[in-house]
Amino acid sequence: MTTDATRHDGRAPDQLRDIRITRNWLDHAEGSVLVEFGKTRVLVAASFTEGVPRWLKGKGTGWVTAEYEMLPRATNTRSDRESRKGKVGGRTHEISRLIGRSLRAVIDTKALGENTIVVDCDVLQADGGTRTASITGAYVALADAVADARAKGLIAKKAEPLTGSIAAVSVGIVAGQPVLDLDYPEDSTAETDMNVVMTGAGGFVEVQGTAEGAPFDRSELDALLGLAAKGIADLTALQQQALDAPARDRQV
Amino acid sequence: MTTDATRHDGRAPDQLRDIRITRNWLDHAEGSVLVEFGKTRVLVAASFTEGVPRWLKGKGTGWVTAEYEMLPRATNTRSDRESRKGKVGGRTHEISRLIGRSLRAVIDTKALGENTIVVDCDVLQADGGTRTASITGAYVALADAVADARAKGLIAKKAEPLTGSIAAVSVGIVAGQPVLDLDYPEDSTAETDMNVVMTGAGGFVEVQGTAEGAPFDRSELDALLGLAAKGIADLTALQQQALDAPARDRQV
Amino acid sequence: MTTDATRHDGRAPDQLRDIRITRNWLDHAEGSVLVEFGKTRVLVAASFTEGVPRWLKGKGTGWVTAEYEMLPRATNTRSDRESRKGKVGGRTHEISRLIGRSLRAVIDTKALGENTIVVDCDVLQADGGTRTASITGAYVALADAVADARAKGLIAKKAEPLTGSIAAVSVGIVAGQPVLDLDYPEDSTAETDMNVVMTGAGGFVEVQGTAEGAPFDRSELDALLGLAAKGIADLTALQQQALDAPARDRQV
Amino acid sequence: MTTDATRHDGRAPDQLRDIRITRNWLDHAEGSVLVEFGKTRVLVAASFTEGVPRWLKGKGTGWVTAEYEMLPRATNTRSDRESRKGKVGGRTHEISRLIGRSLRAVIDTKALGENTIVVDCDVLQADGGTRTASITGAYVALADAVADARAKGLIAKKAEPLTGSIAAVSVGIVAGQPVLDLDYPEDSTAETDMNVVMTGAGGFVEVQGTAEGAPFDRSELDALLGLAAKGIADLTALQQQALDAPARDRQV
Amino acid sequence: MTTDATRHDGRAPDQLRDIRITRNWLDHAEGSVLVEFGKTRVLVAASFTEGVPRWLKGKGTGWVTAEYEMLPRATNTRSDRESRKGKVGGRTHEISRLIGRSLRAVIDTKALGENTIVVDCDVLQADGGTRTASITGAYVALADAVADARAKGLIAKKAEPLTGSIAAVSVGIVAGQPVLDLDYPEDSTAETDMNVVMTGAGGFVEVQGTAEGAPFDRSELDALLGLAAKGIADLTALQQQALDAPARDRQV
Amino acid sequence: MTTDATRHDGRAPDQLRDIRITRNWLDHAEGSVLVEFGKTRVLVAASFTEGVPRWLKGKGTGWVTAEYEMLPRATNTRSDRESRKGKVGGRTHEISRLIGRSLRAVIDTKALGENTIVVDCDVLQADGGTRTASITGAYVALADAVADARAKGLIAKKAEPLTGSIAAVSVGIVAGQPVLDLDYPEDSTAETDMNVVMTGAGGFVEVQGTAEGAPFDRSELDALLGLAAKGIADLTALQQQALDAPARDRQV
Repeated sequence: MTTDATRHDGRAPDQLRDIRITRNWLDHAEGSVLVEFGKTRVLVAASFTEGVPRWLKGKGTGWVTAEYEMLPRATNTRSDRESRKGKVGGRTHEISRLIGRSLRAVIDTKALGENTIVVDCDVLQADGGTRTASITGAYVALADAVADARAKGLIAKKAEPLTGSIAAVSVGIVAGQPVLDLDYPEDSTAETDMNVVMTGAGGFVEVQGTAEGAPFDRSELDALLGLAAKGIADLTALQQQALDAPARDRQV
Repeated sequence: MTTDATRHDGRAPDQLRDIRITRNWLDHAEGSVLVEFGKTRVLVAASFTEGVPRWLKGKGTGWVTAEYEMLPRATNTRSDRESRKGKVGGRTHEISRLIGRSLRAVIDTKALGENTIVVDCDVLQADGGTRTASITGAYVALADAVADARAKGLIAKKAEPLTGSIAAVSVGIVAGQPVLDLDYPEDSTAETDMNVVMTGAGGFVEVQGTAEGAPFDRSELDALLGLAAKGIADLTALQQQALDAPARDRQV
Repeated sequence: MTTDATRHDGRAPDQLRDIRITRNWLDHAEGSVLVEFGKTRVLVAASFTEGVPRWLKGKGTGWVTAEYEMLPRATNTRSDRESRKGKVGGRTHEISRLIGRSLRAVIDTKALGENTIVVDCDVLQADGGTRTASITGAYVALADAVADARAKGLIAKKAEPLTGSIAAVSVGIVAGQPVLDLDYPEDSTAETDMNVVMTGAGGFVEVQGTAEGAPFDRSELDALLGLAAKGIADLTALQQQALDAPARDRQV
Repeated sequence: MTTDATRHDGRAPDQLRDIRITRNWLDHAEGSVLVEFGKTRVLVAASFTEGVPRWLKGKGTGWVTAEYEMLPRATNTRSDRESRKGKVGGRTHEISRLIGRSLRAVIDTKALGENTIVVDCDVLQADGGTRTASITGAYVALADAVADARAKGLIAKKAEPLTGSIAAVSVGIVAGQPVLDLDYPEDSTAETDMNVVMTGAGGFVEVQGTAEGAPFDRSELDALLGLAAKGIADLTALQQQALDAPARDRQV
Repeated sequence: MTTDATRHDGRAPDQLRDIRITRNWLDHAEGSVLVEFGKTRVLVAASFTEGVPRWLKGKGTGWVTAEYEMLPRATNTRSDRESRKGKVGGRTHEISRLIGRSLRAVIDTKALGENTIVVDCDVLQADGGTRTASITGAYVALADAVADARAKGLIAKKAEPLTGSIAAVSVGIVAGQPVLDLDYPEDSTAETDMNVVMTGAGGFVEVQGTAEGAPFDRSELDALLGLAAKGIADLTALQQQALDAPARDRQV
Repeated sequence: MTTDATRHDGRAPDQLRDIRITRNWLDHAEGSVLVEFGKTRVLVAASFTEGVPRWLKGKGTGWVTAEYEMLPRATNTRSDRESRKGKVGGRTHEISRLIGRSLRAVIDTKALGENTIVVDCDVLQADGGTRTASITGAYVALADAVADARAKGLIAKKAEPLTGSIAAVSVGIVAGQPVLDLDYPEDSTAETDMNVVMTGAGGFVEVQGTAEGAPFDRSELDALLGLAAKGIADLTALQQQALDAPARDRQV
């Protein structure tokens, strides 16, 4: 591990990119957020509907699920649409499942009642960290959708389906140095890449680390987990700040 | 046909909604536009790549095509993703084809050389007129992509692939009155609905009229065509104004 | 626009090809027609079934829909089957939707009761105008299917689901001259191509015009609409004549 | 086995239905036939193209293959299109493969040169025996396509890709009695059903027998094989007669 | 036909390969068998579930069906998975259907009650005869699944859904000589290839013969049917022997 | 965390299930292993082919990839085949990708040359830990495929594509206690579930931990990582032992 060299964009190793969370970016959705981690820009829409999938009917519990997808020109070169290819790729499936599991970690499905919330995360522009931005923004959209349902009387006044907050951040070893919230240039050269999903209370929900080059050792793993905890704390504060603000009119 | 009653949103019969054309909304795409017709909001990305599909190779001509799609929560209630359904719906195909034909009407493929421009139109929010907003915005993104290619020397300095401008608008008969640029509440109650694509010079490229209720007669058709010509002239001016401005930094 | 030159097959500009409408070409279908516009040959089968799709149940209204497809060797060179490609192409979807909308324009779904008619239009041989031949033949098959249902007591004796007749024809500008009912050689060289669907009473149901080369102007559009009205009147007479005849045994 | 009772349509046990083979039913295809076995009606198109699939390139041999499909309303009740279902059913695949193998049994692929013939068999109306009618008609279309290619100089004057003729017929045990060429009412009640493909010279190419109810014994099998040989001889004569006639103009 | 030359692996013309039938190879399935015909190795699992497909509900009869598939490296060179190709091939469909029909020939669906047995035949290694090994092994797995259901009281104590035993074997003409149970080297050079499915009582259920090269004549067909009957008798004895043994613990 | 209670199957918390690695279970594949973790049984086939996918051509490097799938009756109740559903599920994609990444962590693709190894992992029976068994067995099959290629001269004598060994194991918190190598009953009740992939030298390649119930804290994470390291060391020894043995003939 090297000393703390400056990162290519001037950030400190434990510094997040500029994070923007714009609530109510859409007019129709029960909850919606445009979340930005630097140039990464994800549009999140949380759709609340009464009723649950067939396999859950009559059990008195709700369901939260997520779908993630990238627009064809979110990235530097255009990719074919999965709809045109007629099948959803493995990476898309994997991230959709991760987002859904992460959100369900802070949902009390009994308190939700027999209702479903589908959270769509569409990446408008990608510059690294699209899955962590998605989860972080999705929590805010989910909270708004729950509040909207409560206001409309679709869930009980006293019911609190949200058991906590959830956020996600990437950490990795770049040029020998553990860093927080990798952008694409860092991500594509990282030796190790890890995505960490944690609750606002500091509990781990998902830890997914991958050695892209050489395997990593236990001390590197420990350093990355420390950075992640710091980043999650920062993101949790930003989420709270966004939710505390009166829902502004969107600004495009 | 009734007298000119005020429309539900206070517009005059021949008045467009508020139109916004924000260039360079994306960082990667060669041309990109966030185009808004009232609450309808479409993200257009024009991707320029060297080379052409196999069936065009060696003919010295380029290719312009388009793909249209709606995000699942663009509409009032969530729709399933076409990628998950494993097939692209008829409406999506139809509009994609219309956008592509419309753009090709103002492209000199010889002057483009053996290059391809794919124009992606993703509807972030729908409130009527998504195909006409797409075409109108796509022209601006296309112009930017062509300018970018020229600046990079990918097409000849003197080549002018664009033979004119193109825009589109809907017209229809609502409550007996011919009106311009229908929003969703108008579109869903219109007796007749027509989409018109015209060049900036006033030539017709596409005319697609459908009787949703009773058939329409020749005089109604004439009235609609007149309204459309007026709307296209307004949109052409707005496109030009957007292109004349220095490409602003995006504002979200 | 040039003077009225003779067309490549000797027809006058406002002359239809030889039209043949053979009823009851099939033994099983409730209504069936082999319709021929010159060498274009479409087999239409109208299938009447009791009940409606799920989304219409209990509303007391029926449903009419259409599916269009070409046999692989309908055209000059063989095309792959859409069933083998695993997906239905955009053109096929688009024409299927057009036929369905056109037929529904002359159907009173209340009078139809909770019954469904699916109209299959399979192009056995293509020489231009397959969609217009399909619509024109489909009306006759639809009328036979309705009559058959009435005879069987599946719809009320006094109910009249058909509110009029419907036919379609193509018009276009070929070598500078507006002409009616283009065959393939004309269609593939037309500067402007327009499909017009009208009721027997002369109302417009669909107008779909496309500039294949240069944009067209208002006077050209007017000329085309006039030709179309003339062609529809001729086709309406031929449909009526076919329906007035006793249903002949088929002749292969 | 019972005595020779009359069949439901009055045929003798070893009697074919009325067989009609109409050549040149299509204008574009190199060979085409409308073949009818009673009410069963199959349109066969043989498409000749220069070149072979990639896996055969450079081997100096040609390729013959077949595709079978039923129109949705060929049968008594409408079936969904395989193209809309997005996949080809097992029965369709199985029959396509059978037709292809049968035709290749009388093709000398060396003599065909590096050319491909695709034979499309589309069932316009089904009343039992669609696969046997397809094979029987396909041979005639294939012969016409070969003759056409020879006339155009696409295969050598002296080359004879056809090594013989091929025909197919069904046999089965119905109400205890072995019968030839089952129609749908017989087919759906047969205890045993067998399709036999033979050359005009009397050699077996395919034998596919299935016990629908009780297993069949060797003597029944022998009786069925005898009936089949008789039927094939009759069909071979009819094929020859069709090919001997000057190719008539089609009569619809 | 030549004299009885020794086969490439030293077998007599009427000799089966080494046949192994290992019951209970799986822990979960109601019936399971690893069946081996020489190097051909198929894992068969019979799954018993209460209830029937929708189209059979309320008729008081059960359903037996089969699915066949090969692992990608069952063969000498790896094949792509059908799941990744997104469609099931014709051969796979055809064999699945054959296995299902064969099993249903010895099932009394009334006695089975409204229950379903799905028999999965997955080819772990292929060396010719995978469909015949599948059927032969499937019978044993089916018998075990029926016995298991009876033991669990899911079918009546006295009900006997099995009306007999079923087995299958291939026969063919290799180097002019009729032989039994072809392995891959024989199968790939056979002039004629036939699969025969018979009951233990000697009745024919399926006969599928194909001339791979020259057509075969009646005397060859007779010779093949004789060989098949001999092979089926041997297989029937081996099935019975396997079923008579106490169900051994599996040995891998 | 509770005291070290005995596990439901009597194992100590840090004890693996019975592990069996049977090499050369298949005759055709360049490397093959039947790997068993208790009742979990995975058939692994490593297929070596010359050449690389198109996107790697001419770069002088090879490619290793993996495909994972479960047989329909591997589990307690039958699942539909992904091939019949026409699409591969998210879980299958995710595990296939994990196995591929894990294997590539110990592959020097330069030393492999322009060759491809596809490793198929088919789960014959599932009782928890199918992905970890797959990776552990896949390493052995991969080593055998590399040795086979070297013996055949397909890779250079001195080239060593394998840079180390790789194995995987699951750990989790069950009833409050961290345990190693969870079987299905444990997996389905675990509060936290983690899959760890490590090299034989003790480096981390993948760490994937998920809170199934309550989030986990850092001390729990540390305990799980310690257990995993112990399990990997045991598996590495078993892999080595299997590879040291002369390749036995398979025993079914």
